[in-house]
Amino acid sequence: MATFINTDTLKFQLFDVLNAEQLLESEYFGDHDKEGLGMFLDSITDFSEKELFPYFQEMDENPAHFKNGKIITHPQVAKMFSEAADLGVIAATLSNDHGGLQIPLSVHTVATAIMDAANNSMPGYAGLTLGSLELILEFGSDDLIQKYAEHMMTGQYAGTMCLTEPQAGSSLSDITTSATPQEDGTYLIKGQKIFISGGDHEHTENVIHLLLARIDGAPAGTKGISLFTVPKFSPDGSSNDVITAGEFLKMGQKGYCTTHLIFGEKDHCVGELVGETNQGLKQMFKMMNGARIAVGRGAAAIAMAAYEASLKYANERSQGRKVTDTGKKDPSQEQTLIINHPDVRRLMLRQKAISEGAMSLVLQSAYYHDRITASNDPEEKKKYHLLLELLTPMAKTYPSEKGIDAVSDGLQVLGGYGFCSEYILQQYYRDIRIFTLYEGTTGIQSIDLLGRKMTMNEGKAPQLLAQEISKTLSVARKIDDFAPYADQLGRRLKDIVDIMEYLGQFSSKGKFNTYLADASLFMEYFSTVVVAWQWLKMGIKATEMKGSGVYSDEFLESKIHTMKFFFHYEVKATAGLKDIIMDPAMLTLKTEKEVII
Amino acid sequence: MATFINTDTLKFQLFDVLNAEQLLESEYFGDHDKEGLGMFLDSITDFSEKELFPYFQEMDENPAHFKNGKIITHPQVAKMFSEAADLGVIAATLSNDHGGLQIPLSVHTVATAIMDAANNSMPGYAGLTLGSLELILEFGSDDLIQKYAEHMMTGQYAGTMCLTEPQAGSSLSDITTSATPQEDGTYLIKGQKIFISGGDHEHTENVIHLLLARIDGAPAGTKGISLFTVPKFSPDGSSNDVITAGEFLKMGQKGYCTTHLIFGEKDHCVGELVGETNQGLKQMFKMMNGARIAVGRGAAAIAMAAYEASLKYANERSQGRKVTDTGKKDPSQEQTLIINHPDVRRLMLRQKAISEGAMSLVLQSAYYHDRITASNDPEEKKKYHLLLELLTPMAKTYPSEKGIDAVSDGLQVLGGYGFCSEYILQQYYRDIRIFTLYEGTTGIQSIDLLGRKMTMNEGKAPQLLAQEISKTLSVARKIDDFAPYADQLGRRLKDIVDIMEYLGQFSSKGKFNTYLADASLFMEYFSTVVVAWQWLKMGIKATEMKGSGVYSDEFLESKIHTMKFFFHYEVKATAGLKDIIMDPAMLTLKTEKEVII
Repeated sequence: MATFINTDTLKFQLFDVLNAEQLLESEYFGDHDKEGLGMFLDSITDFSEKELFPYFQEMDENPAHFKNGKIITHPQVAKMFSEAADLGVIAATLSNDHGGLQIPLSVHTVATAIMDAANNSMPGYAGLTLGSLELILEFGSDDLIQKYAEHMMTGQYAGTMCLTEPQAGSSLSDITTSATPQEDGTYLIKGQKIFISGGDHEHTENVIHLLLARIDGAPAGTKGISLFTVPKFSPDGSSNDVITAGEFLKMGQKGYCTTHLIFGEKDHCVGELVGETNQGLKQMFKMMNGARIAVGRGAAAIAMAAYEASLKYANERSQGRKVTDTGKKDPSQEQTLIINHPDVRRLMLRQKAISEGAMSLVLQSAYYHDRITASNDPEEKKKYHLLLELLTPMAKTYPSEKGIDAVSDGLQVLGGYGFCSEYILQQYYRDIRIFTLYEGTTGIQSIDLLGRKMTMNEGKAPQLLAQEISKTLSVARKIDDFAPYADQLGRRLKDIVDIMEYLGQFSSKGKFNTYLADASLFMEYFSTVVVAWQWLKMGIKATEMKGSGVYSDEFLESKIHTMKFFFHYEVKATAGLKDIIMDPAMLTLKTEKEVII
Repeated sequence: MATFINTDTLKFQLFDVLNAEQLLESEYFGDHDKEGLGMFLDSITDFSEKELFPYFQEMDENPAHFKNGKIITHPQVAKMFSEAADLGVIAATLSNDHGGLQIPLSVHTVATAIMDAANNSMPGYAGLTLGSLELILEFGSDDLIQKYAEHMMTGQYAGTMCLTEPQAGSSLSDITTSATPQEDGTYLIKGQKIFISGGDHEHTENVIHLLLARIDGAPAGTKGISLFTVPKFSPDGSSNDVITAGEFLKMGQKGYCTTHLIFGEKDHCVGELVGETNQGLKQMFKMMNGARIAVGRGAAAIAMAAYEASLKYANERSQGRKVTDTGKKDPSQEQTLIINHPDVRRLMLRQKAISEGAMSLVLQSAYYHDRITASNDPEEKKKYHLLLELLTPMAKTYPSEKGIDAVSDGLQVLGGYGFCSEYILQQYYRDIRIFTLYEGTTGIQSIDLLGRKMTMNEGKAPQLLAQEISKTLSVARKIDDFAPYADQLGRRLKDIVDIMEYLGQFSSKGKFNTYLADASLFMEYFSTVVVAWQWLKMGIKATEMKGSGVYSDEFLESKIHTMKFFFHYEVKATAGLKDIIMDPAMLTLKTEKEVII
């Protein structure tokens, strides 16, 4: 058990609720057994306890910063990164062919969540290196793979993704970084990139940027974007004309650098094309989908860590007295632990319901990814691919949006101390605020969900999801007091169908702006349904496992109680959203009158 | 107009919606006219623009801190404080008898809100000085008044309130600071106080602490608490044995010091009793009620300032393209301002609806206070007193709870830049997080609302409020498209009655713990009703004023549109809460089983 996150809950979700062991029956994951994977997770927990968590607050107090043309990170980052690589954090999910370990992504997600909970400034360095490496392995030439793969896998080199430019923001069709073909087949890169996480540091020998740029003469918009590798240092060790222009100072996640880079200021920045020309956006989306799930994971992990910290406080701090049946408080009585006050219990249960529900959704997504990997059946692959595509924007958004609320509840539990720097809650509160912005804001994720994922393949993905949920409902209806929850969830599923029918009248008439206007609220409504499903699964499994001795009765009861809390409080709290989404007023659409001043 | 808050909105709320001018017809406020009060507000705006706002970010970057036994604040604080006093900020609301200006509290609240919006670390210094002074004036002996009043009114001395102790937290019945009677009628004070806002600084000649302590032999609990003045320096200028033990470093509001004080470590800290013995809590509540409204004001002002900052960004930043009727984006089109994206508009309107609605509720409360002051009729006084008592916990809680969401929406509008220190949104986001903790947490306010304010005088207060709201509903029903909103609000008022009936079954059986279990959700539900009422009032007034030339048509349209938004989005979003409050599951009550682990 870690002190900063409940690892039993993670293992329960992974091995019991998802039954990830089933994956090991496939050929692809067949070399592993549950014991070995458990040892991997234990080694990550141990590493996080010793090398990550003790530096969490310190890295906040000594932020990554720009000095003399360089980014200075906390010295511990180098050690973290190289030890994480040694433990297999970068290589874990890669295939044996590429020197990887073929560990399921769901298992790797638990491992990384443990690291996130211990010190959320760290896993990004490794995650971006892995993501960049995956792009090179999938799309790059043998030469590129030869050049970079092993160095990145071992943590000798780091990787980044360079998308955002000052004038374009999230609108990638507007990027202007240029790539000019050279006679030797390489390209000269010129342009600026901002918000580059892990964009520069001194803890690896080289940094390999996976960068989007336009080859001279390429078509406008997203169709003309290509993907390049651009190393910080050329093969001969000299500078590749990638200049660090500055560091974005932030209100949280201060240990993680966020850099402004200038490519080719002296016209000799060399990049190499990855795969085909003008396929950059499609290629990058492969990395981005993984990154979106990783963002959800980070947010869920921070929220779980905040729960743990506030639970500790609530079980130690005495204050006030229980309200007695007479309604009076007796000052001669001893003070009571604050965990006994109903409002504090509500704050605790809400945190637990959100954070563990969010993590379960993230793991569900990672598990679908594993099912794709493990399967040899094209139909099955397609099914899980659609499910994964549908869940991805929700797995990114629910943890990050609701995680903010959960951490805020945790801070509230501490009263005035929650606002004080000596307690860790305020750092979680500051750190988690970035997650709704990373890798496409909530608004963008919501448009992706409603505008693309709900309708692709004639709406096949939500149909498949409804089938999966229905299976859970059938099981739940057989458990004594679970039937009302199954019914509640069933009604919500029906609501989603109603909403889609209602909105269909706009999309069918080509009124896409109207169709998408309240996409963010649809996201909130639907993702709450999906997390309720996760809780029902957890409740069922906890009921089934009672008396098995694997987990304590308290642990299992706590899961069932929190499931009920999620349905009684969190599901009900969103009841009004359906009415807003189906409200014909459309007050957020731009009208002729100026109404926002 | 200020750059950091829409002062037209404040004036519209004060002079048009509340019609504060009516107050000037009373004898008490009769010396003032609207023009003079407008000039007072303009002078505050000018002062805030020149002396407060420019130091807002700087004071965050150079926090108040503890050094060599002293608290060091930003040097500008001394200037701010003395100039604010010169402008009448401390003396404004005090009676002529005491050398004050007899300005209505509602006008003063607008003035202070402007300062809050400019630099929320500042008004607390003045507000606590005023609050302390009011206690001395109301309960203190002539001698005490003689000694302190003028010095405090002119800003030569500052004041604080010293309640919280490490072992007691919000539970004031557990404070242990002692007061031992001396032969000369003074008391020797001994004890520790924490979280003392403005607790120590060098920008006034003296600091007068209004402190709660127990006289030796006093009864246990809140019945044995008395109120004392304890100056930092004795009349002869020597130290009064009040030692500054440290400063609480915080995640926000860093310019405002929050101090740990030790009284009487060397056994010669002298205090003087204020008023009668053992009346301390009751006396302090007079200050606390004002302070609670002030907390709501500060939060509402920060949220309005955040709206202003994000609006500026949304009107300057181009990104992406409008979704066209074909659903495609055309990259050859120019980029569009982000204010044109429906989701950004939703974020803007939600901020506006919450922040202005919150401020309106705060001003409504201050206005009731003024009606009490202005009235000579005991019945009328009692009516407004009950209304004020009912609104106070809501005026504290709604702005602070929903203000967090509003500021978060503002931050979201800026995308990744919202998280960056160079933009001001992240500072508002950090600063506003303290407001749900100040002066009694949301949980405590909610228990005050449901446990005391709803039921006092046989439930008279909510009845009076329902009458006030009904008057607004009658007017609204006469306006073309306002009837549905009046109906919606009417139904919500009825819901409150239903809820109280439902909960009555618990309180009547003495099950107070059950009765109060979901008090925080009741707070959210009821305060949303009250803010909807404020919006309806604003919508009505805006409709009436169309074409009057006092405000632009855009300004008035914007108020009506935001009113509609509040009803279509914010009111509807809380629909599910009623169902939670009336849910018999009671999952937050402590059971025999351990369910929170």
